[in-house]
Amino acid sequence: MRTIDWATGTAGLDAGGPDTAGVAGFDAAGWIELVDQTALPGELRILRIGTVAELVAAIRSLAVRGAPALGVAGAFGVALAARQFAGDPAGLAAAVHEIETARPTAVNLARGARRAAALLPAGAHAVLREAYAVRDEEIASSEAMAVRGADLVSDLCGTRPRLLTHCNTGGLCTVTVGTALGVVGELHRRGALAGVIASETRPLLQGARLTAWELARWGVDFRVAVDSAGPFLMARGEVDAVILGADRICANGDVINKIGTYAHALGARRAGLPFLVVAPESTVDPDTPDGAAVDIEDRGAAEVTTLSDAVNPAFDVTPHDLVTAIVTDRRVIRLDRGERP
Amino acid sequence: MRTIDWATGTAGLDAGGPDTAGVAGFDAAGWIELVDQTALPGELRILRIGTVAELVAAIRSLAVRGAPALGVAGAFGVALAARQFAGDPAGLAAAVHEIETARPTAVNLARGARRAAALLPAGAHAVLREAYAVRDEEIASSEAMAVRGADLVSDLCGTRPRLLTHCNTGGLCTVTVGTALGVVGELHRRGALAGVIASETRPLLQGARLTAWELARWGVDFRVAVDSAGPFLMARGEVDAVILGADRICANGDVINKIGTYAHALGARRAGLPFLVVAPESTVDPDTPDGAAVDIEDRGAAEVTTLSDAVNPAFDVTPHDLVTAIVTDRRVIRLDRGERP
Repeated sequence: MRTIDWATGTAGLDAGGPDTAGVAGFDAAGWIELVDQTALPGELRILRIGTVAELVAAIRSLAVRGAPALGVAGAFGVALAARQFAGDPAGLAAAVHEIETARPTAVNLARGARRAAALLPAGAHAVLREAYAVRDEEIASSEAMAVRGADLVSDLCGTRPRLLTHCNTGGLCTVTVGTALGVVGELHRRGALAGVIASETRPLLQGARLTAWELARWGVDFRVAVDSAGPFLMARGEVDAVILGADRICANGDVINKIGTYAHALGARRAGLPFLVVAPESTVDPDTPDGAAVDIEDRGAAEVTTLSDAVNPAFDVTPHDLVTAIVTDRRVIRLDRGERP
Repeated sequence: MRTIDWATGTAGLDAGGPDTAGVAGFDAAGWIELVDQTALPGELRILRIGTVAELVAAIRSLAVRGAPALGVAGAFGVALAARQFAGDPAGLAAAVHEIETARPTAVNLARGARRAAALLPAGAHAVLREAYAVRDEEIASSEAMAVRGADLVSDLCGTRPRLLTHCNTGGLCTVTVGTALGVVGELHRRGALAGVIASETRPLLQGARLTAWELARWGVDFRVAVDSAGPFLMARGEVDAVILGADRICANGDVINKIGTYAHALGARRAGLPFLVVAPESTVDPDTPDGAAVDIEDRGAAEVTTLSDAVNPAFDVTPHDLVTAIVTDRRVIRLDRGERP
């Protein structure tokens, strides 16, 4: 069994190391390493995080983002809290709560934090071991989704389809590989992909900044488009399927994901295209009956415009009837055939 | 009859003068006056244009934009050409052609230019008079649309609806008043409007920059949203109708308008909301059978991102079956009842 201690670092990352990972591990000095996604693509900056307050700030500023990466960050954060607040049970409890609630929409953050927190009675080292287990499961999950999703895309679309994706769902939002973008990468490695349209993903441009950066590194042929062009590009015949991630999957199959997902789903339906969601099982929340039950984070006007007031929902709800299939690390859920999570 | 000469200036503009007009007229020095829409909202800069080359550059850079304003700019441009190329028939013909084709999608530009050019045999002064006639008809047209459109919105949505609009369709894109935004302004004056969501309109942010600037001047309560949020805000019940303009209306009722229009139409259909298009008769093109026949301008990657390649259609096609009604200066075309332009 691999030794897990504060200097475990990025052991277990098969490829890339911390410079391609949404959240990599604790470095040799015992600080959490993660790529600062607010600085990409201009600068590849590795953040080293030594306190819970720094981690919460990184989550809120979207330096680390993406549901699976948030789950791992939550678990690592509780490990950090266990060390930082040793001998201060009240401080520790407050820190764990602060991590769990740093952002409201993705179920993974609270789930990752709670899973690590369940080990608190066994001590900080046990929490750290559990956090690494969460991380390593996300890595394995990404790899499983990539294979299963690529098989499904080839089944549905035939050889060398043209895919449209939204937001960023690559290694940056998980640990390595990614969810929907992991499928894109797997198709590319198989020589079974004609190209990608990456929607820019306003207001924070995760598509134009992060997905473009990852696709360029992988050598995938791609073009960026403004978000509102997606449905028209589908209608014009430039897309064979839409593939994207999820921040939460409800019990009835409704998908909570980056704002703009729903509009793309409407476009895919009208164009008769497969609309595929790729997300780990950890994103499926049987306790959320449907999209109406989800607290949709509004991130405030300043992200959108400094000139006036704005309404800025960070996520939207795609009703299950618009989703062809959900691919997880364990299964393909064919919503179009009446299957439900 | 009003005297029209090169120093006619903005006579005939009832309100605002050149500082609210997409294209106002010839100033006392014989230069075309128009608001530089690329500088708004940071700076209210009046461009004074003395050559055809300057006008074509202003059209291509979107310093002047919006189908009705382009029609007026085209007519004024031909008047300018008639003066600039007096005694040079070949130069004049080339200049007129350059104006007509400065941008490909809106029918108004070529139509305004050709209408003025038909007077070329009668001399520059006759061309100028015709250009002012085009302008004054657009003003009257805006005023007629505002009243007719406001009546229709009240009929369909009852008292004080919440409207969503896309791109900029105010006085900046016409001469004064506007098309869809003219209706918004009329409802506001009647006390029959609860508020507006203005989609930001990537890549050039005509909504966040220009519509926001006009709505703020008018005192209308509004919020900006990213383009891809529109359909979700409709699904969430925050919108009672969508109202926007058109760059070209095809014989079958298909609507060519700013990229993102189609996505909003899909959102309105799914939410069961009226989807209303407001545009002057000069936008209706019986020679274009349907949307598939229209040359959709791609404005290149640089407007979208400097980091990678991009696909950047400036317009999209909204099929007529998604449009509830088209309001022109002369009629309401109820596409939802099978009427056609």
